[in-house]
Amino acid sequence: MLFRRIHHIGIAVSNLDEAIRKYEKELGFSLEGKERVDSEEVEVAIFRVGESRIELLQSTVPDGVISKFIEKRGEGIHHVAVEVEDIERELRELKERGAPVIDETPRIGAGGNKVAFIHPKGASGVLLELIESSH
Amino acid sequence: MLFRRIHHIGIAVSNLDEAIRKYEKELGFSLEGKERVDSEEVEVAIFRVGESRIELLQSTVPDGVISKFIEKRGEGIHHVAVEVEDIERELRELKERGAPVIDETPRIGAGGNKVAFIHPKGASGVLLELIESSH
Repeated sequence: MLFRRIHHIGIAVSNLDEAIRKYEKELGFSLEGKERVDSEEVEVAIFRVGESRIELLQSTVPDGVISKFIEKRGEGIHHVAVEVEDIERELRELKERGAPVIDETPRIGAGGNKVAFIHPKGASGVLLELIESSH
Repeated sequence: MLFRRIHHIGIAVSNLDEAIRKYEKELGFSLEGKERVDSEEVEVAIFRVGESRIELLQSTVPDGVISKFIEKRGEGIHHVAVEVEDIERELRELKERGAPVIDETPRIGAGGNKVAFIHPKGASGVLLELIESSH
């Protein structure tokens, strides 16, 4: 397995504008942009840190994944995405080694990237996303 | 504020050897080393991912910070550390902008680095660590 970099850290927030204010005005992170991703039912604010990003995620629907996460655990880190070169190959290898993959085959995520998730029970409570970045 | 990179993601685990086995053998991360940090009361396993690290943290004492975190929330991400160039200057600026800093002045963390924490209420539920890396 070749993990090239931490692609992003996804943080569940209940109020995106308020969270952006804190990250930008109080903490001093540089906002790179906002994006609505209908396939994931989220609105995202992106901050770049070195070769990685911090992504603040607000649900666009009341019963979305991010809303449910916040109801259960409160705001905080929802997932960590690591970039791989060839996601099909890595998924095959992960399954062979016994890792609890959620997506048997990659699906198309934000920005047209291929993504797949690994269950938190396989990574000490961390929801891991594999991402093959198309850019 | 200049955040140079995600320095590490700190993950609270209850059994370090079992967590290392999963990260190394199932997920395929490359173990860089293990380290006991008595000042923080943790044993750490370090995996490099690009310019960042994943650090698995196991408490070395029953009532340590990491043990208490796991009791309350289960295993998972405990903190995210971002590297800064001049931690004293950044702490001053953070306080001026109203960020809820936990450490008014930096303290010495693992590896002799200067570190300071920002309260999760200032970062949408994420415990942020500033780190001025000495190497």
